[in-house]
Amino acid sequence: MAFEKVKRSDDYSKWYNNLVINADLAEHSAVRGCMVIKPYGYAIWEKMQAELDRMFKETGHSNAYFPLFIPKSFLSKEADHVEGFAKECAVVTHYRLKVDEENGGVVVDPDAKLEEELIVRPTSETVIWNTYKNWIQSYRDLPILLNQWANIVRWEMRTRLFLRTAEFLWQEGHTAHATRTEALEETKKMLDVYAEFSEKFMSIPVIKGVKTENERFAGAIDTYCIEGLMQDGKALQMGTSHFLGQNFAKAFDVTYANKEGKQEHVWATSWGVSTRLMGALIMTHSDDEGLVLPPHLAPFQVVIVPIYKGEDQLNEISIKANEIKSNLEKAGISVKFDNRDTHKPGWKFAEYELKGVPIRIAIGPRELKNGTVEVARRDTKEKEVLQMESLETKISHLLENIQENLYLKASTYRDDHISKADSWDDFINLLDSKGGFISAHWDGTNETEDKIKQMTKATIRCIPLDAVQEDGKCILTGAPSAQRVLFARAY
Amino acid sequence: MAFEKVKRSDDYSKWYNNLVINADLAEHSAVRGCMVIKPYGYAIWEKMQAELDRMFKETGHSNAYFPLFIPKSFLSKEADHVEGFAKECAVVTHYRLKVDEENGGVVVDPDAKLEEELIVRPTSETVIWNTYKNWIQSYRDLPILLNQWANIVRWEMRTRLFLRTAEFLWQEGHTAHATRTEALEETKKMLDVYAEFSEKFMSIPVIKGVKTENERFAGAIDTYCIEGLMQDGKALQMGTSHFLGQNFAKAFDVTYANKEGKQEHVWATSWGVSTRLMGALIMTHSDDEGLVLPPHLAPFQVVIVPIYKGEDQLNEISIKANEIKSNLEKAGISVKFDNRDTHKPGWKFAEYELKGVPIRIAIGPRELKNGTVEVARRDTKEKEVLQMESLETKISHLLENIQENLYLKASTYRDDHISKADSWDDFINLLDSKGGFISAHWDGTNETEDKIKQMTKATIRCIPLDAVQEDGKCILTGAPSAQRVLFARAY
Repeated sequence: MAFEKVKRSDDYSKWYNNLVINADLAEHSAVRGCMVIKPYGYAIWEKMQAELDRMFKETGHSNAYFPLFIPKSFLSKEADHVEGFAKECAVVTHYRLKVDEENGGVVVDPDAKLEEELIVRPTSETVIWNTYKNWIQSYRDLPILLNQWANIVRWEMRTRLFLRTAEFLWQEGHTAHATRTEALEETKKMLDVYAEFSEKFMSIPVIKGVKTENERFAGAIDTYCIEGLMQDGKALQMGTSHFLGQNFAKAFDVTYANKEGKQEHVWATSWGVSTRLMGALIMTHSDDEGLVLPPHLAPFQVVIVPIYKGEDQLNEISIKANEIKSNLEKAGISVKFDNRDTHKPGWKFAEYELKGVPIRIAIGPRELKNGTVEVARRDTKEKEVLQMESLETKISHLLENIQENLYLKASTYRDDHISKADSWDDFINLLDSKGGFISAHWDGTNETEDKIKQMTKATIRCIPLDAVQEDGKCILTGAPSAQRVLFARAY
Repeated sequence: MAFEKVKRSDDYSKWYNNLVINADLAEHSAVRGCMVIKPYGYAIWEKMQAELDRMFKETGHSNAYFPLFIPKSFLSKEADHVEGFAKECAVVTHYRLKVDEENGGVVVDPDAKLEEELIVRPTSETVIWNTYKNWIQSYRDLPILLNQWANIVRWEMRTRLFLRTAEFLWQEGHTAHATRTEALEETKKMLDVYAEFSEKFMSIPVIKGVKTENERFAGAIDTYCIEGLMQDGKALQMGTSHFLGQNFAKAFDVTYANKEGKQEHVWATSWGVSTRLMGALIMTHSDDEGLVLPPHLAPFQVVIVPIYKGEDQLNEISIKANEIKSNLEKAGISVKFDNRDTHKPGWKFAEYELKGVPIRIAIGPRELKNGTVEVARRDTKEKEVLQMESLETKISHLLENIQENLYLKASTYRDDHISKADSWDDFINLLDSKGGFISAHWDGTNETEDKIKQMTKATIRCIPLDAVQEDGKCILTGAPSAQRVLFARAY
């Protein structure tokens, strides 16, 4: 592949961009901040969607669809919510263009101004709770357990493919409950779903925790999150699950009659993951040669490359290759046979390395003669020669092995990069030398958190759910603290 | 179900709206012209999506995602295109709100005005061809066969749930080819895919044809379409496949080097179906009791309703019901067992009729004793008592039978409503008395078509692909004509 290779150790950020573009995952569009998700990237996203969708349905949720537009006045109804989202939204003010008589082209028709501006949804709590108001009268109407797959717009000034874009794709769950307990259970259940998806399908270990007030979703009582660690030692928030309390029910006046006939406000949750997960997937596993994909999410898990001279040899190899392909497919393995005669095997090897295909099978005349194939795994780059008998069983096992190996490797890295700091000097040194998560005491105030962020660019990623109660002193102020929290520089 | 029943014969339009809302398919949102697709309606759409997506992939297409926003200047690049879409689009002019110091709430921040306005996509040809420009250099880069599932906004003034809404969901295929022949083949292939989907899954017979210039997609050389006929005798355009020629390639300067190294403009197609198909599905099969769903698209195909007195009887029946459910599910049939004790069987019967569940199984103490079940089919409302042995085989056959019966019934109605008219009087009489498609001669001019539309509200739905060459005279002008076209009043 003719493209500039960048090493992670030289410029991690450039390596990432380079990889996203050259592995045909996504690219910048002509519209500022909006990306084009290319077919190969989209195929990975589709695999993620399919698994998540299955998990949502297994936990009792249904899909629905709510409007793209939100009346401006809706945003203002929940005070924190508007504060959080008003500064970065796309505003529709007109509904028609007209021919520009003077300069040609088209201009906005001033006669087609909307009475009330519409906001392109940055998230859908407001429009959904305005709808739930009509759906909920009694406790019999609860719970409502819905999800929607949708596009979202937040007018980010500095954008990066997948990680931070003005438009992105996501799912947003919005549930309504009769009791606080049930809503809290739902919040945590969906956090567990996200963690399971990340670990089982993405092979990414995550830390489950709660956000501090500073980092909380605008409108939530508590924001639960899963946090991953990238290879450059920076953390990435991979998903959030919000306990919204009765905030949106109060803002939109959504009440229900309980069993005793008394009116009460409804309890709410919302939870989401987005195409940002693509960024996490890429950054966690990939190397200087390109993308490394966990088999569970690879658009195709195996590529077969023929090594041949002349058409006759290709024909002979193709018969065997198609037989292998068919056997593997029967075993539920997705396979591509690349028999293009426009590219040499070496070029193909590099291409599928770049694209992260978990297993490459090469077949040449020698393999044909010996009844073997050469199998190369993408993650460790190890090669071995395997007999063709029961190849599907061997490849199945190898795929599982790769899936687990990626998880283990990422876990080892992550665990090696959780460090305790008990003094400010340690904290600074660890941040600058090693990076990763730093487990430290904090006095629990927004002011201290802000100050640490200003001084170091590190934020509190979360208060881990499994945090141990332990007396200590805040690394910055020395004030007393009851547990450690996790700091990191983050995406 | 406590809702106002409306008969088709009394007020077809009111019957439709009533049904959409009461069967929990969709409702109007607080945003003018935008609908909320409710879980039951969305589950039907998901079934449609899954089948179409499979068919697109089987014909070699991949999914991708392009931006929601289109720079205003892009629209103007293809002259017909801007003419067709500028009059009904949502325009984003600003990217920030700010607190309204005087009146509270938020207002548009005048300092956050975009340099160039963005249009919320009414269709994506322009943004996609601007992207393809960078993807295509040589004939080796062709064909490009992509599809995207997306939301679309066209600022319609008069909206109707599913049939015509400001925002709707759709898929849009966009392909790029080296030759005219190949692009034309693709256009027709995708029309065939739509027709097959409609007939096989929706049980709706369609007529394949080509649009006249007046009804053509803005920017196309030719628009192919499938047209269905609703129970009120009005036609509905169910899907279109456009042969775009080199129009967009020329507008966006997309050329490729052919095998001889010569630069040529690329040939294009685009094709789409939308949530409008939900409207077609509802209107084709449903009756005065509610929705009637073809089994291939029903969220659940069978509902089991227990008939019981007291908890003991319910428990006894539940054991058998769960056994049946499990057996049916093993045979690939989707089943709901409604054991709620909050509603009486009669209420449940009416509810599942309203929701169009293809088969209802009732089990009471008598059935339990006799080893039978009562099976009622939604389409004909026939009931029969069946022995429980090999019930899954019987139900499987019954589901296929219902699927076919719906198609036959719709075909009979449609065929009965294609009439020939050879004079203006016949034409008017047929339109006003019988409705449906009227096969008549037309002189081939836009003027005549416009005039007929003004006089009768009927439009030329298509020139059928299987039209026979036959000399005749235009029903309005008497000018010579070489073939009949199909007129109808349409949605």
